[in-house]
Amino acid sequence: MNCDTPGIVHDLAASARQACDPEAFRAMGHRLIDTAANYLADTTAGKRVPVMPWVEPETMAYEWPPHFPAAPQGDMNRLFEAVLTEATHLHHPHYAGHQVPGPLPAAALCDFVAAFTNNAMAVYEMGMSGTAMERSVIRWLADSTGLGPAADGLLTSGGSLGNLTALLAARAVKTPAGADERLPSLLVSEQAHYSVRRSVKIMGWGKDGAIAVPCDDRFRIRVDLLAEAQARAEALGRRVIGVVGSACSTATGSFDPLDAIADYCEANNLWFHVDAAHGGPACLSAKYRPLLSGIERADSVVIDPHKMMLMPALVSAVLFRNGDHSYVAFDERASYLLDRDPREEWYNLGYRTFECTKRMASLKLYACLACYGTAMFADYITAMFDLGARFAALLRDAQDFEVAIEPDCNIVCFRYTPDRACDMDALQASIRKTLVREGSFYIVQTRLPQGLFLRTTLINPFTEESHLRALLDAIRRIGVRLA
Amino acid sequence: MNCDTPGIVHDLAASARQACDPEAFRAMGHRLIDTAANYLADTTAGKRVPVMPWVEPETMAYEWPPHFPAAPQGDMNRLFEAVLTEATHLHHPHYAGHQVPGPLPAAALCDFVAAFTNNAMAVYEMGMSGTAMERSVIRWLADSTGLGPAADGLLTSGGSLGNLTALLAARAVKTPAGADERLPSLLVSEQAHYSVRRSVKIMGWGKDGAIAVPCDDRFRIRVDLLAEAQARAEALGRRVIGVVGSACSTATGSFDPLDAIADYCEANNLWFHVDAAHGGPACLSAKYRPLLSGIERADSVVIDPHKMMLMPALVSAVLFRNGDHSYVAFDERASYLLDRDPREEWYNLGYRTFECTKRMASLKLYACLACYGTAMFADYITAMFDLGARFAALLRDAQDFEVAIEPDCNIVCFRYTPDRACDMDALQASIRKTLVREGSFYIVQTRLPQGLFLRTTLINPFTEESHLRALLDAIRRIGVRLA
Repeated sequence: MNCDTPGIVHDLAASARQACDPEAFRAMGHRLIDTAANYLADTTAGKRVPVMPWVEPETMAYEWPPHFPAAPQGDMNRLFEAVLTEATHLHHPHYAGHQVPGPLPAAALCDFVAAFTNNAMAVYEMGMSGTAMERSVIRWLADSTGLGPAADGLLTSGGSLGNLTALLAARAVKTPAGADERLPSLLVSEQAHYSVRRSVKIMGWGKDGAIAVPCDDRFRIRVDLLAEAQARAEALGRRVIGVVGSACSTATGSFDPLDAIADYCEANNLWFHVDAAHGGPACLSAKYRPLLSGIERADSVVIDPHKMMLMPALVSAVLFRNGDHSYVAFDERASYLLDRDPREEWYNLGYRTFECTKRMASLKLYACLACYGTAMFADYITAMFDLGARFAALLRDAQDFEVAIEPDCNIVCFRYTPDRACDMDALQASIRKTLVREGSFYIVQTRLPQGLFLRTTLINPFTEESHLRALLDAIRRIGVRLA
Repeated sequence: MNCDTPGIVHDLAASARQACDPEAFRAMGHRLIDTAANYLADTTAGKRVPVMPWVEPETMAYEWPPHFPAAPQGDMNRLFEAVLTEATHLHHPHYAGHQVPGPLPAAALCDFVAAFTNNAMAVYEMGMSGTAMERSVIRWLADSTGLGPAADGLLTSGGSLGNLTALLAARAVKTPAGADERLPSLLVSEQAHYSVRRSVKIMGWGKDGAIAVPCDDRFRIRVDLLAEAQARAEALGRRVIGVVGSACSTATGSFDPLDAIADYCEANNLWFHVDAAHGGPACLSAKYRPLLSGIERADSVVIDPHKMMLMPALVSAVLFRNGDHSYVAFDERASYLLDRDPREEWYNLGYRTFECTKRMASLKLYACLACYGTAMFADYITAMFDLGARFAALLRDAQDFEVAIEPDCNIVCFRYTPDRACDMDALQASIRKTLVREGSFYIVQTRLPQGLFLRTTLINPFTEESHLRALLDAIRRIGVRLA
């Protein structure tokens, strides 16, 4: 109570309490659920067009200006409606862009529960059930990938943070105190995700911290060139501490030969990290599990359930075959948080995570596994990878398209190759820009050694072969005009 | 379509599509909203007891086992009810623990919208409105802190990542190519958050990467000892590149004298970083803004709206007075994402964030500022900081309590000091453990040079002075028995 006027008590916290009024929340929440359910029905049926209502960045910034009133004003439900209307509609069958899915709507409700309770962990007391669920989804992922009963790990806010955590552990294990002064290097496929090179730079290993290993014509790391790359690094005065395998690469969805990399790492006492952000969940699919053969021999693995498990961002897992390694990346102490030997306290995750306050990311994965079952995920992955193969077949059958490589999974790169001379790269870029601006489809692009390619990730269970035929027709319609 | 049986088409994506059924979602959502509204009414009224239903970690793990069925099973709404029941109830007036608030329920709905649309940014096309809202809340925070019109910045998943991003920028600016080979060091208060030392270790600066500067008796950095600390670092062969100020420190909520640090940094050409994760929003309060005097001279500032702005985790801001510095922490390229000079593309945030896939964290802050207005936040902060002063007065008036320091803000450390000889540290620890286990209050503890102290963060607008009197009575009740 703050006394502005004698005798009158002015309660400064009153408006914050009022914003927590249960009945106002109830009304707002029910209205939002109806808005979202209607959105979902329209979008999954392909009725919400365009798939992405393109607006220039400066125009969008003008629409959401940095001017806020002092007093309450406006209707949050109308704001939500605007956000849904202006969204890139990931549940639309014509969405086949980045490795970001239209999530299971129940998983989005889980994120509401996580935010509403705000049981943000790091210390167990601040998120008891979330900590337990995290342990269980980590256990399940470790078992699913075959890492064995000694494995352990953590959830992180994103795969980049997962990769950094794994590489910090590699550094701690492979460059112990007393080691010589040489800077460490990793052998990294030239197709590895940029977060790996970014992690290396963050750790201060400089430009030779990631030694590029060439790929074969399907963009898989050339294992026969690892020794040469290691020799090159050592000639630069580097200590090579590990190899990073991709399962799969981002640009073309290529799975590195993990077993062969594991052989090399074992023979040379190197840390073996697998970035399985996208492809890791393929371990659930009997048909596609062989792509991951050898992942069970990795020292560390990153998997993003927010890619191929229909989870909203962010929920990434970093797994360690030797669970003790999950404790070594960070070793700071903070007296107001944690006061004992970390291994006694598996449940105080702050010892092991970069994050101090950490969202309850486990709930959505736990709840969806528990209530929808594992077969749904296995079937979904098989279906999407199958669709990648069928799309590639469509492209091969067409006279006017070229597929970059036979896809390993649901990432398919291709280009429109009309029967006349033109600047191929500019054509692909123009086709994509037109598609996105008109909003008929959402796809992306990537640069490969052969040139610029259109790139699709078939990640939406509502996308069927008929939609992909329509995509090719749309590209032809645009391409004929542009070529 | 995958043909298992000749003539029968088995659609493997069907169960994933079924999990997106709009009407099933609608029913689940409405039920959850009612559950949450009822929870909110009970909790804010203090009727949901205990405030934290303590369960041993192993027991909790047993309750949420890593066993998932193959087929659908169970009712997700019941799972949600269990999570709410087992939560630490942050909206309860007896919650005064970590710097994690019971969030505005509307902000939790925003997190649902963010997850449901999954418009996870990094590239503009994947989150157009979220990118625009991020620019605006950054602009507003930069203006509120007085960093000036050239300032720019980003939202990050947490303050630890914000601190790391700021320090990477400091490294890039202060150790340009061609600089000598000395490892960098930062001058850091011995009370600074552990994420600062952790960032330094991640960057590979070793144990002398963070040079500890002693604090005064109110746990504020001793500016008069900065020169001595710098000389000590240089004697160790280090290049000092910056100073970190805390606004405020985590353990005791002490605000460093930012203006004096800024003077030192300007005189010595050092980067000035302010970790204002907790205290930054005090710039909104006319009464408490002077605590932050000098923040407008910082090179980089981190503010966590998920602390003192009633937002659910995570939404942190890293601000740079020179907006160009928001581009320098990371400089990797990835052809499938980004293809031009970063500064032309402020809206492709992936150039500037550690994160590749990034949640739409801006929505909750934007929506709550737009609809509740800024005065609510200013008043809330003033009210909570005022409450800290009133709690300290209560403690001083009591014969059997000792307040660690006169609090600067809403973090108050104290201990029970009965009139008889006993192990004071053990007593405080036992009192806290009993409080938490019986669930009457949730508070934490911290180790200070004088010993172990009980620690409260008064962060809940439902917490009033009467609740704090009840807390002292509860401690006396327990303490008399234990002492």
